[in-house]
Amino acid sequence: MTPHTPAEPDLRHHGDAEVRADGAGLVDLAVNVRTGTPPPWLRERLAATLADLAAYPDGTAARAAVAERHGRPVDEVLLTSGAAEAFVLLARVLTPRHTVVVHPQFTEPEAALRDAGHQVRRVLLSPAEGFRLTGDAVPEEADLVVLGNPTNPTSVLHPAAAVAALARPGRTLVIDEAFMDTVPGERETLASVRELPGRVVVLRSLTKTWGLAGLRIGYVLGPAPLIAALAAAQPLWPVSTPALVAAGACSTPAALAEAEQAAHELALHRDHLLKGLAAFPEVRVHGEPAASFVLVELPGADAVRDRLRALGFAVRRGDTFPGLGPDWLRVAVRDEATTDGFLAALAVALGDARGDARGDARRDAPERP
Amino acid sequence: MTPHTPAEPDLRHHGDAEVRADGAGLVDLAVNVRTGTPPPWLRERLAATLADLAAYPDGTAARAAVAERHGRPVDEVLLTSGAAEAFVLLARVLTPRHTVVVHPQFTEPEAALRDAGHQVRRVLLSPAEGFRLTGDAVPEEADLVVLGNPTNPTSVLHPAAAVAALARPGRTLVIDEAFMDTVPGERETLASVRELPGRVVVLRSLTKTWGLAGLRIGYVLGPAPLIAALAAAQPLWPVSTPALVAAGACSTPAALAEAEQAAHELALHRDHLLKGLAAFPEVRVHGEPAASFVLVELPGADAVRDRLRALGFAVRRGDTFPGLGPDWLRVAVRDEATTDGFLAALAVALGDARGDARGDARRDAPERP
Repeated sequence: MTPHTPAEPDLRHHGDAEVRADGAGLVDLAVNVRTGTPPPWLRERLAATLADLAAYPDGTAARAAVAERHGRPVDEVLLTSGAAEAFVLLARVLTPRHTVVVHPQFTEPEAALRDAGHQVRRVLLSPAEGFRLTGDAVPEEADLVVLGNPTNPTSVLHPAAAVAALARPGRTLVIDEAFMDTVPGERETLASVRELPGRVVVLRSLTKTWGLAGLRIGYVLGPAPLIAALAAAQPLWPVSTPALVAAGACSTPAALAEAEQAAHELALHRDHLLKGLAAFPEVRVHGEPAASFVLVELPGADAVRDRLRALGFAVRRGDTFPGLGPDWLRVAVRDEATTDGFLAALAVALGDARGDARGDARRDAPERP
Repeated sequence: MTPHTPAEPDLRHHGDAEVRADGAGLVDLAVNVRTGTPPPWLRERLAATLADLAAYPDGTAARAAVAERHGRPVDEVLLTSGAAEAFVLLARVLTPRHTVVVHPQFTEPEAALRDAGHQVRRVLLSPAEGFRLTGDAVPEEADLVVLGNPTNPTSVLHPAAAVAALARPGRTLVIDEAFMDTVPGERETLASVRELPGRVVVLRSLTKTWGLAGLRIGYVLGPAPLIAALAAAQPLWPVSTPALVAAGACSTPAALAEAEQAAHELALHRDHLLKGLAAFPEVRVHGEPAASFVLVELPGADAVRDRLRALGFAVRRGDTFPGLGPDWLRVAVRDEATTDGFLAALAVALGDARGDARGDARRDAPERP
């Protein structure tokens, strides 16, 4: 972890660091990957690839499967070594003059853009407005706009129409839909919309729903010429054979039905977490969470996070996201039993924090005889 | 496959294309991956990772294992998504003024350098001199030199001293040792040599000996500051968990002993192939092959290659390598039975070619009454 100041958040901090090293044994509410994944049928498909690893990867079938799943031509699909590779490729290939990244959001796109030498203007959505995308949020001169939908870490799902309204001739609109498959019906996706003005690029991940963070697989959907340019910037054989097989296997109607079912269960689990959080007066949730995590504001969240770790629960710090700060935490949605355990720990942590505050108040109070 | 002229070889053609599509069912002598790989013990190690794919990759242990295997500090090791990623990273990070690529060699380094905007000067080693590295081959002003050892496709192993003699203050010397583990004792490696002038970078692959082409795993050894710069140019989580586990598993003393044994067997199999090839007067081998393939020169190799395909054997075309042409083929070393089958097919193919030549001669001869 590199040092950072509140003025400049550490864009390279990610949730996996919260469950590394001293985090071993903690209940992981910091990383937004569905539990119990990859499912046994997918593990079997992956295991079957291990005998074929001597051959170089061939992405033809996987690319076709993803294209069919989204109803697009094959040349509008690029398979990548996780969505993280896609951010780096976009940063290298695009030549924007006015780049806007809509925050709070996943920090890797901005980090990749800055690494590639681009200047980035941050547009901050407001918690007071539920992190909604307002019509005038993005300046007209922006020729590259990067947005998450649903957004990590706010969990807010922007209406497809509001996102589509950002498309312009001469503008590249990049929509990070890494968590869209956690939304029932993927109801606000633009993955299959090809008629918008300018260039609209949708990034998808198989990491969260399918538990493939360790395998590195994602993809980009966009206009064919841009896809070709991104492909030319990739190394030779960029995606491994098991990852390609996963991309194909997770694009079938059966897999999509399973993801849909998981999204519905997730919504119930999220309601349970939100009801529990509502019992704590210091905890506030802004907007309507729609993804596999919930962003909460509570005073002194930094200290509460430390207490939660001591009680066995790892949550994601919020201060590394532009637009947030030390009073924010991101909590993954888990099954009800895990959530109940977390809520109990949170009650203890918040009780300790109140006790400390009273203690501080007592210590600060003038002594009486 | 993109079109190419003899004057400008298709640097993006690779052996795997020879066994794709219409090549299904052919005996593969085009791709230089050890047969019977990955071995069962390694498949088991990889299979064990499939339950852990939900977690993001953590390269710490693998990096330490590779560093220990080569007796270098951890900060002199970078794990990459195959050696192919390393070429792209080097091309992006280095800022040479005079780049020299020593040919014939694997074409991807030059392709990556050109893609990144660098001008590349080709130094061609001569078949008449057995593709040996002569003292004056590389111009003094070169500040980036890329060399393969042992070299694909010539199979020639340069003495470590001759390679080390190319190191200079102010010069980055990149040695592609992707096939070094096919050489008993890795006897000419510079992987563990840290005291040479300038910057010496060694690239290694686990693809060939361990049959992991489909998994994408390789690594770079070099000075810590350069390694840090290359790492900064990588996407987040660049190497998958199974690939990291493979890197660790293939760096143990037991794995190295198995690779050593395989290298000794390979030498016997290569001798068998060379003896068989020596029976054909039109076939010439230049230099002393030291890797898992043999480069042969024979007139009309293009047509012979087509005949071999019709007879069930895929060999690698030579005309896409700078410095070679349509009279060259690369043949993978296989077990003796496979080689005998290939030699029998080659006898038929060459007999056909001679018959055609006679036929042509007859057709070309003036008619006699």
